[in-house]
Order: sequence, then C-alpha cells, then structure tokens
Amino acid sequence: MKNRTVFLVSDSTGITAETLGHSLLTQFEAENFKQVTLPFINTIEKADEAVARINRVAAQDNLRPIIFSTLVDDELRDRLLPANGLFLDFFQTFLAPLEGELGVRSNHTSGRAHGLLDTVKYDQRIDATNYALTNDDGSHTRDYEQADLILIGVSRSGKTPTCLYLALTYGVFVANYPLSEEELESGKIPAVLEPYKHKLYGLTIEAARLQQIRKVRRSTGRYSTIQQVNYEIRAAEQLFKRFRIEFLDTTHASIEEIASNILNSTGVERRVSP
Amino acid sequence: MKNRTVFLVSDSTGITAETLGHSLLTQFEAENFKQVTLPFINTIEKADEAVARINRVAAQDNLRPIIFSTLVDDELRDRLLPANGLFLDFFQTFLAPLEGELGVRSNHTSGRAHGLLDTVKYDQRIDATNYALTNDDGSHTRDYEQADLILIGVSRSGKTPTCLYLALTYGVFVANYPLSEEELESGKIPAVLEPYKHKLYGLTIEAARLQQIRKVRRSTGRYSTIQQVNYEIRAAEQLFKRFRIEFLDTTHASIEEIASNILNSTGVERRVSP
Repeated sequence: MKNRTVFLVSDSTGITAETLGHSLLTQFEAENFKQVTLPFINTIEKADEAVARINRVAAQDNLRPIIFSTLVDDELRDRLLPANGLFLDFFQTFLAPLEGELGVRSNHTSGRAHGLLDTVKYDQRIDATNYALTNDDGSHTRDYEQADLILIGVSRSGKTPTCLYLALTYGVFVANYPLSEEELESGKIPAVLEPYKHKLYGLTIEAARLQQIRKVRRSTGRYSTIQQVNYEIRAAEQLFKRFRIEFLDTTHASIEEIASNILNSTGVERRVSP
Repeated sequence: MKNRTVFLVSDSTGITAETLGHSLLTQFEAENFKQVTLPFINTIEKADEAVARINRVAAQDNLRPIIFSTLVDDELRDRLLPANGLFLDFFQTFLAPLEGELGVRSNHTSGRAHGLLDTVKYDQRIDATNYALTNDDGSHTRDYEQADLILIGVSRSGKTPTCLYLALTYGVFVANYPLSEEELESGKIPAVLEPYKHKLYGLTIEAARLQQIRKVRRSTGRYSTIQQVNYEIRAAEQLFKRFRIEFLDTTHASIEEIASNILNSTGVERRVSP
C-alpha cells in the first residue's frame, strides 16, 4: 500500500499542526502516512520552497499530499494554497466564527501558541520540571510543602514520566516517592509522607507488565521475579485502599491518559496550556 | 473586563482540544479567557452533565461560553450541540474533506490520538525519557553511542528541559553535557565527546538572563556574577564556532521553539508524533 505524505506546515514550531494532524490521522488507521513537519515557514521565500517541496513529493508519490496548515499570516497562506495537495487550514477555519462571537478581529500574528510570550508561565513550566527532577524517586523529601501532588507506587509503575509530563505540559509540581519493600511490609504510610496524605495519588500496574519492564532494567535477581512483583503490587494496592488514596492502573494507559486522569480526579489546576 | 469561559471537551485526554483551543485563543490577546478542560466525556450521562455545566456557566457569566470539541462519536456530539455556547467541532470539520480525499470512511473511534495504541512508539518515549534522565548533566558518559544528539552548553543554558521535552514529545534520544570552566579554558572539545562530534549541538544564552537564572539557584559566589557568566558564555560560543558546532540562543525561545529548531536544523527524525 502506498504511503500518503502529510505535510505539517507552520510559521512557528509546528507543534499545533503536528498535534492536530496526528489526531485526525489516527482516525484512518488502515492508511499509511508519512509525516513531514515544515516549521518556521515565516517568509515568502520559505513558503515558496515549501510549495516546491510539496509539488515534488506529489509528483514522486503520484498521489497528492495532505497539507495541515497553521499559518496565520494571510500572505503566507495564499502562497501555500496553490500547492498540489489537500489544504486543511486550522486557523482560518475557526478564526472567523471566533471573531464573530467575540466581536473583535484576531491579531493574525504568528508564533503565538508555542513562542516565548508569557515568561511567567514559561518559568512555571521550567520550575515545575526542576521540581520534578529534584523530587524524583524519593531522593529529596524536604520540599513536599510545595508539591501539588505526590505520586506513590512501586518501582517502575510509571511515576517519573508522569511527573515530568505534568511539569512540562501543565506546569504542575509533582513529586514522586517509591514504596520500598520495608514500607510495604509495615502497611503504613511512610513517615515523610504522613503530613501530606491529602496530596498522595497512587499508581499501580499489572504484574506481568511490571515484570516485563523490570526485566529490561535488571534481568536477574528477585526484583523482576513474578512472586516479588505480585507481592509488591498487592501490598501497594492494599495500602492505597486502607488509607483511601486514589489510585490508577497504568498498564493500558498512555502518559497523557495517566496525567489527564490524575488532574481530572484530583481537581489540581493546570497552570499552563499545552 | 469579563472573562469568557472556554470549554475544551474531549472523549479522551483533552490534549488535542487544549492544543487547538490554546492556539486559537492566543490570537485574541486582548481578551480574558478562563479555560476548563472536560476530558473523558465518553458516555451519554457525562455528555449531559457537561451540557448542564456549560449552561450553568453561561447563565452565571451572562455570556455564552466557547466550546472546542474533539468528540468523535456522533451520538455524544449530538448531545453536546444544544449547549448554550459557540460550538467549534474539530473532527467534524476536518474528517469529511479527509474522507473524501482518502476515499475511505474514518473509524470514528475515540481516544485514538493520545491513548495507548502503539506500545512500540510508547516505549520509545519512555526509553528516550529514561535515557535523558540517565544522561543528564554529564552524569553518565558511556552511552553516547545511543544518542541521537548531545546538547552542550554552560550550566543553566536550557539543556535539561530541552532533552526531556524532545524525549517525551518525539521519542528522540538526547544526552546533555555541561561545559565546565576547565573545559572552556582548554578551548578543546572534552575528550569524552570527541568521538561524537557529529552529534553535538550547542545552546547559548544572553549573559543578563543567565545571571538571573543562576541567582535564583545560588545567590552568592562567583557562579552568578556577571563577569563569570560573561566569560563562560563567550568561551562556549568560541568553542562552538571553532569546531563548527551548530548552536542556538535560548534567551527568547520557548522549549518548543528550541526543540523544533534543533530537529529542523540537524535533520534528526521525530520517532513519534505529539
């Protein structure tokens, strides 16, 4: 089956075009797509180069490409329009109804979404990321006062990527703390976490999947035996239930789903928009 | 000025709706928006609750909300439509022209974009994130063979957040190595990096901004004096130029811009889509 080339054309980073394009293309599972991001198309020359490239690919593939555009500038967009492809225009489509509703004209300025406009919000993401790194894996337990949330769970249940994602995407401060075997045996909440019980959120995972993940990390020893994995997971879930700590099974969830579920169920507010 | 409430309604994580909404709203800088994400609207009951909530807000604000929807299921979307707001429908708008072009029906299944569909790609993101963490800040220098790129620069020039973002968003393996004062004085590429010169990419930053960032971290001592900061930046940039290492000034760039610029200019391929 032939690959259909998809161009994601942007006057800035291309991230909005990539996200929207990806969402639409996943609705056509049986098709094969080859995605090409063309970011920073912010001059007439670059727009013309983009058109030439799209037309070249259309001729090579003998199949016209799909073009997802987030170009804001009318002049640049008009240069792109004659390209040999299906042109889907994210901004133009929705700006008109929004302008009508709000009763104002949009500013038609490019690079607004993912540029460095709001340094306060930007610093929040960086600060949250540094917080996640410093407070990763129970390595630092003195700054839980600052945490919006503290994720707890057994080793390799998905805590670290979730904390980093929440920090980078939403500017939320999330620490994480691994439940050790001794702590699980005690059946109590670790003393350092006791004052922050209201901030705790648990992650769990199916035993077979956890074993698989742990084996990649350490192929021998008790750490990745099914007995050990089973024991730890069961003890962790008992702890969550005993202390009414909300928890989530990460086995079949993406980082985005875990993050979105956590924010949704805890009510922690997003500080910035992706 | 009144806040206009904006609902981002999704049957899954809400990330596509957030990205779309955020991009469009940044085109109306003068307006005040209050964004509310309603993720996992995947049953008739939840759709009806969402409608009730939107109508409540419309009455309270005395201003009808804007609704960005990425609901895929026709039945759920039809429940949302009567809500008192401007309904902007991402999927309906673009699926029809795509179906026409591709000559197939879309699968109309929800949660495709950011759900756990493709575990290979998912594992790539997690592996890349673990790689970024292990190979952060020159802490580990034995696995550069695996790196797609190695970022170099002075302390606090933006290396770590960029590596993590590239890993989480695109599944790209990026290590980072801080240029120490001794290394800068020598004017040479550090020996551990020598074999990987083709993978190096430099980050630089304006002195005043770097001093500001460093002061937050360590307010006294040479580390955050303007003399020291100036010296380090100049020496780093000389090193980049002498060895023809591409580099980027991060002072006025967001993480997304830095990441997109790096991929664009090095040609390193995105392994996954955001």
